Amino acid sequence: MFPQINPDLQSSVLRLIVDALAEDIGSGDITSNLLIPVDLRFSGIIVTRESMILAGLPFVAEIFRQVVQEARFVPKANDGDKLKAKSVLAELSGPARGLMNAERTALNLLQHLSGIATLTRHYVDAISGTKAILLDTRKTIPGLRQLAKYATRMGGACNHRIGLYDGILIKDNHIAVCESLTEAIRRAKIVETNKIEVECDTLDQVDEAINAGVDIILLDNMAPDLLRRAVDLINGRALIEASGGITLKNIREIAESGVDFISVGCLTQSAVAVDIGLDWVQEC
Amino acid sequence: MFPQINPDLQSSVLRLIVDALAEDIGSGDITSNLLIPVDLRFSGIIVTRESMILAGLPFVAEIFRQVVQEARFVPKANDGDKLKAKSVLAELSGPARGLMNAERTALNLLQHLSGIATLTRHYVDAISGTKAILLDTRKTIPGLRQLAKYATRMGGACNHRIGLYDGILIKDNHIAVCESLTEAIRRAKIVETNKIEVECDTLDQVDEAINAGVDIILLDNMAPDLLRRAVDLINGRALIEASGGITLKNIREIAESGVDFISVGCLTQSAVAVDIGLDWVQEC
Amino acid sequence: MFPQINPDLQSSVLRLIVDALAEDIGSGDITSNLLIPVDLRFSGIIVTRESMILAGLPFVAEIFRQVVQEARFVPKANDGDKLKAKSVLAELSGPARGLMNAERTALNLLQHLSGIATLTRHYVDAISGTKAILLDTRKTIPGLRQLAKYATRMGGACNHRIGLYDGILIKDNHIAVCESLTEAIRRAKIVETNKIEVECDTLDQVDEAINAGVDIILLDNMAPDLLRRAVDLINGRALIEASGGITLKNIREIAESGVDFISVGCLTQSAVAVDIGLDWVQEC
Amino acid sequence: MFPQINPDLQSSVLRLIVDALAEDIGSGDITSNLLIPVDLRFSGIIVTRESMILAGLPFVAEIFRQVVQEARFVPKANDGDKLKAKSVLAELSGPARGLMNAERTALNLLQHLSGIATLTRHYVDAISGTKAILLDTRKTIPGLRQLAKYATRMGGACNHRIGLYDGILIKDNHIAVCESLTEAIRRAKIVETNKIEVECDTLDQVDEAINAGVDIILLDNMAPDLLRRAVDLINGRALIEASGGITLKNIREIAESGVDFISVGCLTQSAVAVDIGLDWVQEC
Amino acid sequence: MFPQINPDLQSSVLRLIVDALAEDIGSGDITSNLLIPVDLRFSGIIVTRESMILAGLPFVAEIFRQVVQEARFVPKANDGDKLKAKSVLAELSGPARGLMNAERTALNLLQHLSGIATLTRHYVDAISGTKAILLDTRKTIPGLRQLAKYATRMGGACNHRIGLYDGILIKDNHIAVCESLTEAIRRAKIVETNKIEVECDTLDQVDEAINAGVDIILLDNMAPDLLRRAVDLINGRALIEASGGITLKNIREIAESGVDFISVGCLTQSAVAVDIGLDWVQEC
Amino acid sequence: MFPQINPDLQSSVLRLIVDALAEDIGSGDITSNLLIPVDLRFSGIIVTRESMILAGLPFVAEIFRQVVQEARFVPKANDGDKLKAKSVLAELSGPARGLMNAERTALNLLQHLSGIATLTRHYVDAISGTKAILLDTRKTIPGLRQLAKYATRMGGACNHRIGLYDGILIKDNHIAVCESLTEAIRRAKIVETNKIEVECDTLDQVDEAINAGVDIILLDNMAPDLLRRAVDLINGRALIEASGGITLKNIREIAESGVDFISVGCLTQSAVAVDIGLDWVQEC
Repeated sequence: MFPQINPDLQSSVLRLIVDALAEDIGSGDITSNLLIPVDLRFSGIIVTRESMILAGLPFVAEIFRQVVQEARFVPKANDGDKLKAKSVLAELSGPARGLMNAERTALNLLQHLSGIATLTRHYVDAISGTKAILLDTRKTIPGLRQLAKYATRMGGACNHRIGLYDGILIKDNHIAVCESLTEAIRRAKIVETNKIEVECDTLDQVDEAINAGVDIILLDNMAPDLLRRAVDLINGRALIEASGGITLKNIREIAESGVDFISVGCLTQSAVAVDIGLDWVQEC
Repeated sequence: MFPQINPDLQSSVLRLIVDALAEDIGSGDITSNLLIPVDLRFSGIIVTRESMILAGLPFVAEIFRQVVQEARFVPKANDGDKLKAKSVLAELSGPARGLMNAERTALNLLQHLSGIATLTRHYVDAISGTKAILLDTRKTIPGLRQLAKYATRMGGACNHRIGLYDGILIKDNHIAVCESLTEAIRRAKIVETNKIEVECDTLDQVDEAINAGVDIILLDNMAPDLLRRAVDLINGRALIEASGGITLKNIREIAESGVDFISVGCLTQSAVAVDIGLDWVQEC
Repeated sequence: MFPQINPDLQSSVLRLIVDALAEDIGSGDITSNLLIPVDLRFSGIIVTRESMILAGLPFVAEIFRQVVQEARFVPKANDGDKLKAKSVLAELSGPARGLMNAERTALNLLQHLSGIATLTRHYVDAISGTKAILLDTRKTIPGLRQLAKYATRMGGACNHRIGLYDGILIKDNHIAVCESLTEAIRRAKIVETNKIEVECDTLDQVDEAINAGVDIILLDNMAPDLLRRAVDLINGRALIEASGGITLKNIREIAESGVDFISVGCLTQSAVAVDIGLDWVQEC
Repeated sequence: MFPQINPDLQSSVLRLIVDALAEDIGSGDITSNLLIPVDLRFSGIIVTRESMILAGLPFVAEIFRQVVQEARFVPKANDGDKLKAKSVLAELSGPARGLMNAERTALNLLQHLSGIATLTRHYVDAISGTKAILLDTRKTIPGLRQLAKYATRMGGACNHRIGLYDGILIKDNHIAVCESLTEAIRRAKIVETNKIEVECDTLDQVDEAINAGVDIILLDNMAPDLLRRAVDLINGRALIEASGGITLKNIREIAESGVDFISVGCLTQSAVAVDIGLDWVQEC
Repeated sequence: MFPQINPDLQSSVLRLIVDALAEDIGSGDITSNLLIPVDLRFSGIIVTRESMILAGLPFVAEIFRQVVQEARFVPKANDGDKLKAKSVLAELSGPARGLMNAERTALNLLQHLSGIATLTRHYVDAISGTKAILLDTRKTIPGLRQLAKYATRMGGACNHRIGLYDGILIKDNHIAVCESLTEAIRRAKIVETNKIEVECDTLDQVDEAINAGVDIILLDNMAPDLLRRAVDLINGRALIEASGGITLKNIREIAESGVDFISVGCLTQSAVAVDIGLDWVQEC
Repeated sequence: MFPQINPDLQSSVLRLIVDALAEDIGSGDITSNLLIPVDLRFSGIIVTRESMILAGLPFVAEIFRQVVQEARFVPKANDGDKLKAKSVLAELSGPARGLMNAERTALNLLQHLSGIATLTRHYVDAISGTKAILLDTRKTIPGLRQLAKYATRMGGACNHRIGLYDGILIKDNHIAVCESLTEAIRRAKIVETNKIEVECDTLDQVDEAINAGVDIILLDNMAPDLLRRAVDLINGRALIEASGGITLKNIREIAESGVDFISVGCLTQSAVAVDIGLDWVQEC
């Protein structure tokens, strides 16, 4: 099943799975070791208990495979699918002890990632029809960056830079060190292979950034009215990202201001786990 | 600073920090490498932007130390403290590039763990004055089990079993395999050094569990009225844990039913990050 | 073959095998690389050279599989079996160089674990017919905790707590810190989900422990006569473990004193390796 | 303290210590966490409880340092020392919880390695005054190769090859593959930078080996009488190692046969742990 | 000394050092263990034996620190310096065994990285005075990507993308899959936060790329004459990189064609180690 | 395919491959993820672009297998083969994204190792017909020791000691510490199981070394004339290695001086990568 996972994610996923299984199983499942015969086999289904956007099912396949190499796992849905409650996500079978050892880890990951994807979709739906694209941020729970950003993609967002290493974003501290926004952009332009994004808090800064030849302007924490004035001022000379204080309530108004991107930290920082269950039956 | 971290947590914390820094910094902070002089130094303060229960400050010290060995970090609050908005959590200083490399990772961890502690405290406060003790569960975000359970302790909860390895909990699948609850308890009692907990859905099961000599009974998803009848039936012959469907709205009524423990999965699965910031100034 | 290994043990076993192969093979088997053609194949049998209780055969299968992925390995006995000298434990075949690379590591592990199981069985046999159960301890050779405790199970013992994390045992230092045995037990009872065991050196301490409501009493280094008096005093109000100074000569008398458990450190600390050989023939 | 450890051993020691602490402490010492105040400090002494040759004390220093970075550890004896019962090996002090977390791991390692050194010294003493040198073998407990061979050196033995990678030893299977002992030696001589050792079971083989120009002859499982005849036959034309079936009873007779080396597998495979204790007192 | 290493490089450097020391020292330096007393101390100097650009000195400090924690290491030059033969790079002192254990690993790394920096500087000098900037490539020796790219920076080049993750470069295979260069660029532009570079082999492709709105054009393996025509055609509408078949002989002519960047694979793939020595004296 | 890799090399190879893929792919191939459909399949051939000695093809198979478990890889040549330009080395096929993710890492390794093997073969050819054997050294690029020494074997050289752990080589610093070459050899002879090699700079030292009973003499940086005099002086009483300042121009004259071995550091330190390409076609 593993090849369904994009090669990019393999190393992140594998390391996380090893750690997560270790922290739950530790020195062994003392309950099942006492109560479940070694040769007993289970088959089961993974089922949604509420409506959701699915994210993480191939990783769940790998979790079971790590614990029980010969487990059978047949996916019945795809990541990114919008599912109703009581949808069957997968059928699986194998030695009962191993499957039960892996169960909680599998559900914890699936519920968390699908929670992110589901919340993301609500934001995406809220701005549908506008030209704005929803972005995630670097505000992710430690150890889950790659998977969290995978989940937002499943929810319909695009990824902002993955980390500090793959995008230039000049913030207030950088500007202060360089003494002016213009000077900061000048220094950053030395390496011309990257687009340069700069955070602006005022229209004056926006003006200065445009004149310095920036590629993208991040408008931080601006009210919709101010946003509209900034969009007018920029007038197509740079891409525009709105960020800060975005909620499901105000995101549509912000999108309608004409910005190109809206980035939302809570997608990956404050998503609520969705409810997914695993129903086992003994194989006779 | 590190010795303030309980020895138990050291290996979990160190591994997570290494992974989290790697996923954010990767091949380097391309913005700061262009804009921040190598020898520039920053000092700064970590500040709350809303009221919260603090959890994770010693780990933040370690994150900065990992990136900048000679960073100065002076904590100004303790994990478990209840803090208002605009409280200073720590003062720190050191080479600007290193500090900025570590900033997002530090805040991501601190905001998440303090989010768990803060949510936990709301539940603890809701049952204050009753005899019920709040417990967490194994429903934790993968890779964060030890830290999540540390954060619930800071919030005032007690830890349920850490994983499958340190507590016996007989669930419906175990009972089905053993063919009866009585037989499941009998098998589990072979190893007499652990207390035995069993999940019960009905009063009949509760009755059977008591007769089989169980130590703790988990009452799963029972309405307050049914809970009260179960408490009466058990009548002190076993400890009682209520679980399933617990919210801030109904937890007090459940606590007043007379149960010993209430376990709540959302503490670690669905906590919202609290807002904490980091304000830098250049050292002259 | 791997699925025969209990999921609990997989990570311990795999890490140990990787380390053990590395420390023996290092930069390569310089003798076989010079003398054994690359395409030569061996078949062979693993044979006991004395009577023993077997422990570790599935791990040996994995050792050969690690070095020679396509090795054929057919087990002919099961862990826990009581075997005479000259019993065939397994048949195997594959590329000669790889098999010879793995041989010493495989035998070292099998001889050590079977040595533990064999010694354990002698102790188990010595107390057969009494109600006492043989327990192991935390006195294990570093790096082998899980496997050593697996081997004692194969020998017929039960496992005492695996480490500091899965059982409460109050010892003299804890009591000294708490100022009284009663106070130590009181503090430990705050978390009611675990049974509490306390170490007692005198009948006065036993009396105090019973009154404080302890679950298990460890009688440390008591002579059989004193043990019997302690058993009478406790009179079924707590489980009883005898420990310290136990030998094959005195264990039956100790068991007959009426204790529930006898724990013996030398099972895992001082077992003598049993003799097992590997006989190869070239495949023509 | 760490610099006292020979650089060769550092990586083996550090990896083993990390694993050993993890397998004992796991998710935390639940007893001490309940009973020992965070800020309590202990001081203590490590004391022998029987006579022994010491091995492993610098590693014990490192174990405590791993858990409690600021622990004070003052060694009072050196590895290789012959000590009576009740000798103080080290004084140490630091936070009580950390010290207790590390105690069992420290003692397990020290008791095991000193057990190897002590057994080794008995064999060394048994052949003192002869020209024979005691060697260890590759029969070591998995994961402990480097440390076990360090302990035999402390006991007064020399190390035979560390693994398959640093010495050529032609055994019966190699000879069978090469079709003759002469041919096996011829092939091994292609790389002339190593001495070549060959295992011989008969005087005929010894004769053939000498004629083929071997450097060292291993006489396997020969009775003293046959050994003496082999020594006469070789007559200084090669170094001689006796191996197989060596005990404390027969080793002197074997040494007196005139061999250069005697190798003994049980030194590292079947040593009995020596008794060493740790006595704590609370610092006031 | 470690803080001198840019935080970006720490994890790469540390992992490489651990591996490199292990592969050289393995189970121990058998020569020095026999010949060098444990308590002997050396002091020494690292000296150039030919002229060079220095790269890697802070990593050498870390190599010695890894083996001998208390080694004294005083750098006498900086990475990026142009040095004559017989320049002293550093003074160091500490226990002789440890220093000798680390020597070869330290020199191997320093000679290799300085070899890259030195070769790079030759190319940089060859195009000085033109507007062209020298770039490295992804053609690096496995395991050394970060360090190799650090060394080219010390030599005066700029880094092209570090890996597949931090820059978009559309090559012939991508174009073939998308069926046209225009379509490939269209798909890549969906994510507007990155600049888009496309490889062109002909002037027709260049024309198509410009029309599709690409940011950077890589002219692959074009002769100087064709390059000049491409530069004219592009006429400032995109940045231009020349690549393929660049040598010290032809690079100036290529630079003078007016391209913005020239990328050269051999900098990191085929640099010759420079000669650096380490002279020890015993401390009395 | 993996079993074709000698068991000795497996762990080095696997660790290097994991690191090398990670440093190139990082958080994902952003170009291919945008442009290559998930289900597109490629087939391709690996082709030489110049004449060479091949080394590393089985490792390339493993690189593709790591990224795309179900990749088909059919080798068409063997390591050690002498190949002309345009020779097909392998055919492969599988999912296009995964294959493209692995491509650069695979080529980087294959080009580097084949570069070493090719350079080595030039030196081997230069001394063909003499009795001298070409040896490599410990001057290898960090992290590649095992693979570099594998590549020199493919080129026709023999390996000198792999590291400090598997051969005794007494150098000038050792002699200085021991105060005389005679004393250094005496101390080294205490362990008689290894051959002893000593570095000599003068005929006087050669004379002293022979009298002290050394096994191999390394003649360092001697001109051919002096070498011949040393060979005469030694007169078969020890093996002889020439080292230092060896080039393709002078190696034959050195070989004809009658030495047994010639060791050359530049084989592994300064080899130029050979040109190898990968041509893909889409599967329809």
